[in-house]
Amino acid sequence: MTAPKSISRSLPSAVGVATVVTSRMSVQTPGTGFTDLTAEAARFLNDVGAKEGAVTLFIRHTSASLTIQENADPAVLDDLTTALSRVAPENAGWTHDTEGPDDMPAHIKTMLTATSLQIPVVNGKLTLGTWQAIYLIEHRSSPHRREIVLQFIGAT
Amino acid sequence: MTAPKSISRSLPSAVGVATVVTSRMSVQTPGTGFTDLTAEAARFLNDVGAKEGAVTLFIRHTSASLTIQENADPAVLDDLTTALSRVAPENAGWTHDTEGPDDMPAHIKTMLTATSLQIPVVNGKLTLGTWQAIYLIEHRSSPHRREIVLQFIGAT
Amino acid sequence: MTAPKSISRSLPSAVGVATVVTSRMSVQTPGTGFTDLTAEAARFLNDVGAKEGAVTLFIRHTSASLTIQENADPAVLDDLTTALSRVAPENAGWTHDTEGPDDMPAHIKTMLTATSLQIPVVNGKLTLGTWQAIYLIEHRSSPHRREIVLQFIGAT
Repeated sequence: MTAPKSISRSLPSAVGVATVVTSRMSVQTPGTGFTDLTAEAARFLNDVGAKEGAVTLFIRHTSASLTIQENADPAVLDDLTTALSRVAPENAGWTHDTEGPDDMPAHIKTMLTATSLQIPVVNGKLTLGTWQAIYLIEHRSSPHRREIVLQFIGAT
Repeated sequence: MTAPKSISRSLPSAVGVATVVTSRMSVQTPGTGFTDLTAEAARFLNDVGAKEGAVTLFIRHTSASLTIQENADPAVLDDLTTALSRVAPENAGWTHDTEGPDDMPAHIKTMLTATSLQIPVVNGKLTLGTWQAIYLIEHRSSPHRREIVLQFIGAT
Repeated sequence: MTAPKSISRSLPSAVGVATVVTSRMSVQTPGTGFTDLTAEAARFLNDVGAKEGAVTLFIRHTSASLTIQENADPAVLDDLTTALSRVAPENAGWTHDTEGPDDMPAHIKTMLTATSLQIPVVNGKLTLGTWQAIYLIEHRSSPHRREIVLQFIGAT
C-alpha cells in the first residue's frame, strides 16, 4: 500500500446538471469476440450536445458483457478471449446445459466482466485514456443481436 | 472486431434532472448463494416516483457482492457458485485465514464480481433485459445481514 | 434464492441535484500491488462541498484497475494479488508478449476487476462499509504513474 503523498489531484471543474438523455443501441455481433463501441458512444454524446457529466452503458443480456480494454493490438483481444475460456471452459461439468455447451460459460464470463460501465465526460468527450476502447464481448459462439442502453447524465 | 455498420441506435429521450434519492436496504442472506433484489429495487423506484435516470446499488461489504444474471433456470446460479469456487477455492494456500477457510475466497469472489451496479431507468422502470435479475451473492458459508445503498439520480 | 421477506429498506432521503464536479487524480504506483485512494476521494468530496449524490472513480488505463476491498489485514491484499496471478499467470501461451511477460496478464486482471466504480455519497461522506477501502491495483511489475478521473454528481 502506498502513502498518500504519491497521489496528486487537479483543481475540479464544476457545472450545473440539467439533463438525463437515454438511448438504446442495437449491436449485431459476429459470434464470440469483441465489438468496439467507442465511436458510437462518442457520436451519441455529440448528438445530444453533452458537455460535462457521465455516460453509462448497460447491456441487457446475461451471455454478453462490456469491458474497457486495449485498442491497439488485436492480439490482446484474442488473449482476453483465451483467458475467459480458461476460467470458464465448456464441458466442465456444468448442470445448466440445455442451451448448448457455450451457454453456461457465457454466463460465467458475463459475471466476471461488466454489465454496466460508467465513463466521465468532460468538454463533450469521453475521458478514456489513450489506449482504452469500450467493447461489447459476445460470449456465445453464434452471432447475436444485442441491446445496450446508453445514458448521459449531466450538463448539455 | 466488428465494423460500426453493425451498430444502430434509437433517437434519445431527454428530460430535466431534478433529484437524488438515497435509501438503505438490509438483506438477510441464507449463507452462500444468490438473493434476488430486482423486485425490491423496482419498488424503491415506484415509491420515490422515479421517472428517468439511473439507479445505483452499492453493497457495503467485501465478502458479498452484486451481479446481474439469468433469472430463469436456478441451475445457472448453482453453476455460477461452482465457477466462483473453482476460481477461488478454500484451503489453497491463502495467508489470511483467521476468519475461517471461506473468508479469503469470499474476498476474491467479491473482487471478481461487482460492488456497485448502475442500471438506467426509463418511464419509471429498470431497463433490465427479459432474462436479467439483480442478485446479491453471499460468499460466506453462514447467513449474514448485508447492507446495500440504493440511489436514484434523475427526474422524479 | 431468498424470499423478499428477508429484505428491508429504510425511508429514502431526497434532495435536488445541482452540480457535476470533475477532477483528475494522478497516482504513482510502486509496481504490482494496491494503493489506497479512500482518503483522497473523501478529501475531494470535502473540497467540492459534496452533500448527496454519487462519486465515480474511472481509471484511464488497461493494465491497472480499481476495486473496493478489505482495509484491515494487509494479508488480504497479498492473497488477492496471488489469486489474480493464478487466474492470469505469466508465460501461459499469450500471443501479445511484446511489452514483457507481465503485460498480457495485466490486461486480463484489469478485465476481471473494475475500470469504473460508483459510490453513493450521503451527508458529504462516502457510504463505504466499515471494512471497505477503495484501491487502485497496479498489475505491472514496475512503478507507473496512473491517472484517475474523480467525478461527483449531486447536490453541493
